Amino acid sequence: MLYSWIPNYPAQGPGRPPGATVIIVLKNDVTEAQLSHLVEHVEASGLKANISRGTYRTIIGLIGDERKLALEHVKSIPGVADVIPVLPPYKLASREAHPQPSVISVGHVKIGGGNLAIIAGPCAIESRERLESIAASIKAAGAGILRGGAFKPRTSPYAFQGMGEEGLKILRETGDKYGLPVVTEVMDTRQVELVERYTDMIQVGARNMQNFYLLTEIGRTQKPVLLKRGMSATVTDLLMSAEYILSQGNSNVVLCERGVKGFDPATRNTYDVASVPLCHILSHLPIIVDPSHATGRPDLIPACALAGVAAGADGVHVEVHDKPEEAKSDGAQALLPAQFAELAKQISQMAQLVGKKMSPGGGAAA
Amino acid sequence: MLYSWIPNYPAQGPGRPPGATVIIVLKNDVTEAQLSHLVEHVEASGLKANISRGTYRTIIGLIGDERKLALEHVKSIPGVADVIPVLPPYKLASREAHPQPSVISVGHVKIGGGNLAIIAGPCAIESRERLESIAASIKAAGAGILRGGAFKPRTSPYAFQGMGEEGLKILRETGDKYGLPVVTEVMDTRQVELVERYTDMIQVGARNMQNFYLLTEIGRTQKPVLLKRGMSATVTDLLMSAEYILSQGNSNVVLCERGVKGFDPATRNTYDVASVPLCHILSHLPIIVDPSHATGRPDLIPACALAGVAAGADGVHVEVHDKPEEAKSDGAQALLPAQFAELAKQISQMAQLVGKKMSPGGGAAA
Amino acid sequence: MLYSWIPNYPAQGPGRPPGATVIIVLKNDVTEAQLSHLVEHVEASGLKANISRGTYRTIIGLIGDERKLALEHVKSIPGVADVIPVLPPYKLASREAHPQPSVISVGHVKIGGGNLAIIAGPCAIESRERLESIAASIKAAGAGILRGGAFKPRTSPYAFQGMGEEGLKILRETGDKYGLPVVTEVMDTRQVELVERYTDMIQVGARNMQNFYLLTEIGRTQKPVLLKRGMSATVTDLLMSAEYILSQGNSNVVLCERGVKGFDPATRNTYDVASVPLCHILSHLPIIVDPSHATGRPDLIPACALAGVAAGADGVHVEVHDKPEEAKSDGAQALLPAQFAELAKQISQMAQLVGKKMSPGGGAAA
Amino acid sequence: MLYSWIPNYPAQGPGRPPGATVIIVLKNDVTEAQLSHLVEHVEASGLKANISRGTYRTIIGLIGDERKLALEHVKSIPGVADVIPVLPPYKLASREAHPQPSVISVGHVKIGGGNLAIIAGPCAIESRERLESIAASIKAAGAGILRGGAFKPRTSPYAFQGMGEEGLKILRETGDKYGLPVVTEVMDTRQVELVERYTDMIQVGARNMQNFYLLTEIGRTQKPVLLKRGMSATVTDLLMSAEYILSQGNSNVVLCERGVKGFDPATRNTYDVASVPLCHILSHLPIIVDPSHATGRPDLIPACALAGVAAGADGVHVEVHDKPEEAKSDGAQALLPAQFAELAKQISQMAQLVGKKMSPGGGAAA
Repeated sequence: MLYSWIPNYPAQGPGRPPGATVIIVLKNDVTEAQLSHLVEHVEASGLKANISRGTYRTIIGLIGDERKLALEHVKSIPGVADVIPVLPPYKLASREAHPQPSVISVGHVKIGGGNLAIIAGPCAIESRERLESIAASIKAAGAGILRGGAFKPRTSPYAFQGMGEEGLKILRETGDKYGLPVVTEVMDTRQVELVERYTDMIQVGARNMQNFYLLTEIGRTQKPVLLKRGMSATVTDLLMSAEYILSQGNSNVVLCERGVKGFDPATRNTYDVASVPLCHILSHLPIIVDPSHATGRPDLIPACALAGVAAGADGVHVEVHDKPEEAKSDGAQALLPAQFAELAKQISQMAQLVGKKMSPGGGAAA
Repeated sequence: MLYSWIPNYPAQGPGRPPGATVIIVLKNDVTEAQLSHLVEHVEASGLKANISRGTYRTIIGLIGDERKLALEHVKSIPGVADVIPVLPPYKLASREAHPQPSVISVGHVKIGGGNLAIIAGPCAIESRERLESIAASIKAAGAGILRGGAFKPRTSPYAFQGMGEEGLKILRETGDKYGLPVVTEVMDTRQVELVERYTDMIQVGARNMQNFYLLTEIGRTQKPVLLKRGMSATVTDLLMSAEYILSQGNSNVVLCERGVKGFDPATRNTYDVASVPLCHILSHLPIIVDPSHATGRPDLIPACALAGVAAGADGVHVEVHDKPEEAKSDGAQALLPAQFAELAKQISQMAQLVGKKMSPGGGAAA
Repeated sequence: MLYSWIPNYPAQGPGRPPGATVIIVLKNDVTEAQLSHLVEHVEASGLKANISRGTYRTIIGLIGDERKLALEHVKSIPGVADVIPVLPPYKLASREAHPQPSVISVGHVKIGGGNLAIIAGPCAIESRERLESIAASIKAAGAGILRGGAFKPRTSPYAFQGMGEEGLKILRETGDKYGLPVVTEVMDTRQVELVERYTDMIQVGARNMQNFYLLTEIGRTQKPVLLKRGMSATVTDLLMSAEYILSQGNSNVVLCERGVKGFDPATRNTYDVASVPLCHILSHLPIIVDPSHATGRPDLIPACALAGVAAGADGVHVEVHDKPEEAKSDGAQALLPAQFAELAKQISQMAQLVGKKMSPGGGAAA
Repeated sequence: MLYSWIPNYPAQGPGRPPGATVIIVLKNDVTEAQLSHLVEHVEASGLKANISRGTYRTIIGLIGDERKLALEHVKSIPGVADVIPVLPPYKLASREAHPQPSVISVGHVKIGGGNLAIIAGPCAIESRERLESIAASIKAAGAGILRGGAFKPRTSPYAFQGMGEEGLKILRETGDKYGLPVVTEVMDTRQVELVERYTDMIQVGARNMQNFYLLTEIGRTQKPVLLKRGMSATVTDLLMSAEYILSQGNSNVVLCERGVKGFDPATRNTYDVASVPLCHILSHLPIIVDPSHATGRPDLIPACALAGVAAGADGVHVEVHDKPEEAKSDGAQALLPAQFAELAKQISQMAQLVGKKMSPGGGAAA
């Protein structure tokens, strides 16, 4: 089992109470009056201030639960040069709060904690015939979950915007017919109830990763969520968005690395594969990779999918289309069914090497 | 008049019909059969295909209205290496469609076409007293429009989320009391009607620049819109988002440069001031700058505000707070009223130099 | 053999003569006189101009060897909107020029074409004792090549700058003692001869990737070169820098992905693993990965190293130090010998899965 | 005088001795033994360790001159989570070391401290006739310094590489003929002596900003240096590179913002105008802007040049060419002499508004 030693799964005791120590760095020319005012302000919030006077700079270490203090204000207090929090701002999503990796169940498919799932399907649902044909091929190849967009985020208002509820029905029935749980994107708070009714997992797209009302609304359901990393989101931002969902009571969040904005036009985005082990260190939530959107190039997808699995990803999300030439959206970045089948076999071999179990097991890929 | 010659305002005739020529680049090893298939496909869409055989590569130039053809499909046709559109994908937002600069009226304040307005106020509405105090000071300094958030996009679910409708009421009444039209951010489609009722201008924040349902909903109103550039949005992306609003019938869009994601942690974002003349070349829509969010540092805001005006911006958006120490959101990046008054005076002088008129005129800043 | 089907190694015929077709896009308002002038200019260079008049735009396809024409000038000719080259600007480094993957020999170690090598060692050479101790441990673990810096690029002039020639001697003798070919960085044209004398492979660091005099000087030797990707270099830029070396007659270039500048401070750089399959598609040169510099975090290095191998990398470059606490440079990003030994074993297993042979074979890692 | 209040020129006392306080953050699970070991290590270096035990974390504040301690080592000591320096790593370049703005003299032209100079000329020196013609026009328009490349950094080995020493001679003689001090780029340590002989100012290009041997060699001369910001360099990196030159005894450094790597292909680079006030806050060195390289588009250069001056830049660097169509390098980004003359007039007006004096004074632009 290749990954036995990688520090993904720290053997820690029970989660420590969330909290943070904060360091306040003072300006060179801070006056004693400013310093006294600051200490009073801090101690009025129930914290203790430990002053450390250096030769050139003075700093204050805060002792206690810093959440009692509005750190943003402290930065504006005269004499303060900087405020440095020591613990991460996310609590429920952190490893410290939940040392064991979470396992998220999407129907009979498991993601995380040693289970690896493949999510596949077309960018958009285009017709029942097309979706059934694709579903049959990915099922045969060993995919666990069927994806397809009924509401599509399109840069241009003149582009195909998705089939809407009609598409959701086709997705649900196709999933049932082929024994594949289904996932689809929700783009608007007004759609959450509708989408919740038809799917097994709700996707939040990269462009909505910081649509906080949408996150909150989804957090009030108990549906598993596929939370895609925003194009300019740090890993901390991603975990803070997960925290929005978790803080509403829905703990079924699966993170997804799908590339961030980069400067090289050769690929659609920059595939930040290091975010996979990083999320595993910082958080208990599973993380999967989406090389289709990360690269936008079918000729790079297989290598990048395998790289994600090698880095510890708990799943792979790939777009598959049997007639990319006729696709209504992003056809150019989809794999053909035969390419996908080959890739699924390789993912399965790679999973075995890194000590992961394909979910669901026993399929064609195994 | 400093800007008489800058190519912001091309003296063109009436807008040409929207349309685009497209170039299809073929692969090295394209077969004659593939080429025939491709030409048939193109001509079936009512376009003409002009084949140009090079020594090493063959290309096809499309003649006619390429919108009849789904370009995304063409990329997937065997033998095709690349598809290069020659005209921009936005139509209504383009200079070509509307050669004269648009002037957007927000109450009695004008933005664009030689009019320069200052939008100022606190990040969030915190209380009537606080907002009135700030409104009084910015009015005296010459600001035209009062800003303040009632719904706040916060990275953390544990941070202050805004006063909601109560905040909207305070904003409306404070604006009326001081003769300042008001602008506030809308974050969710369900809020559009409510926000529309209370404000003179609706702001779309950077995180929602590609929330397409929200853009569509706002496009159905006739309220002026302040559309902020997303953190990872190209100028083309920004204009495409404007196109969403325009395509619904609302042509009152003001663009806003507020910094994009960059690698230098010294500033909160990277202030891309070149987007100002670039938007003026590509589009008829006004563009203002927001140095508060672009830099996140009060010590850089004045210089960056003036840089924006010098680059041709049609307005400046600045956060002002009289007690940053007590601000519930982003206090650390706000100017104090006295700093703002100084800056407003300088903006006014700079506006005169570059041949712009402060709107509304006759205020303290003039 | 996992990678049999990945399009890394296209089954092409002999390399075609280098060349490119170029497309000239004309401005909307181009006049017939401008067009005639342009065609004359092009044809005076011995090329043919194929004019394609669209409804809204006219384009010209150039037929012949476009290198006869200074494309940069063409952009400035009145009436020209854009000039779009169709083939890449690198010739010798391209797959088209050399369809089979190159195998580079560094002493008895092979890199590329199915051979995978591990380069390991400390950031800087600090003393004979330290280097020998590290060399012994990496040799035992299965590394093929010993690295160590004698000249160090340091951001601060006050930091340790390397041991210079004394360090080179220690490196050479240690390599010989343990049967490990050695690689070290050269930072200045004046050092090339010296470094060439002592090492088996010359490293060009990220900060010097576009130091064109240095590339030219190294191109005049026959030493294998480890060419690291610059922090803001596209893959095309990297291949153009390789072209500098190749065009001088030295074809022994190994590319290295070591992370590019990104916006997330969680990692030192952004590890762009997609560049590995991309380089394999575009070029015949081998490419290795350097997760030490890409991430700057020992807790991310193993996962990222394996991701690189899974993506098809021809080697892995890792910093190893037995007393990071006492390292004079970058100690914080080094693996301990025991961690490295574990990783080397995993790389070896992964190599087997993807159909690569460890070079040299028969070592402890196999 | 517009800039009287901007915090560019803090009224400070004499420079304080360089130094820094450092904060060591300990891991959650640090043991008492590790803590003791760490404190011993620190105190052995002559510093005092001030321990501050928080509820969840413990931190240590270092008192004394931290340069006695190798901070990089400290990060690797067991139990240490992070090491946070409080003062910047550059000393001689900092405002703290030298509170008054430096004025750099290039021949009779002054840059900094209220003096604003225009540097103009072609990208490359192509012939005596061409350079004289351009020099005459920029002199008439009010430029202070003539630029022109004799050694050119070109991405492609097949592109024009510059005229070498012959070009230097032409540059020198043309500068003398028109009374313009001259600046040219040096790319290799072996050229420093040659270039020093012919020019009044030495340029370090963006690609060589971290060529530390070159910086050191130039630091040993007393020539004024134009140090361009690297494409992926933070402002701190830029100041550290200046520190290299200053630490060798050459304090005549002028910084230059020329755009950093960004994601929007609409401009060649992202023009980070906020770096201008930022450098003025952090350093006493003058900073000029180069909108030619920052944008790569003549239609954006004037607006961006004025933005730079409005932001406080001490100079503007613009490429000018009278026959861009025939330019051997970067012709497409040059202004025509008439466009430049118009811009120079506007810069002069803007300079007056912001309280700067054109240097040299009395020219055509005034």
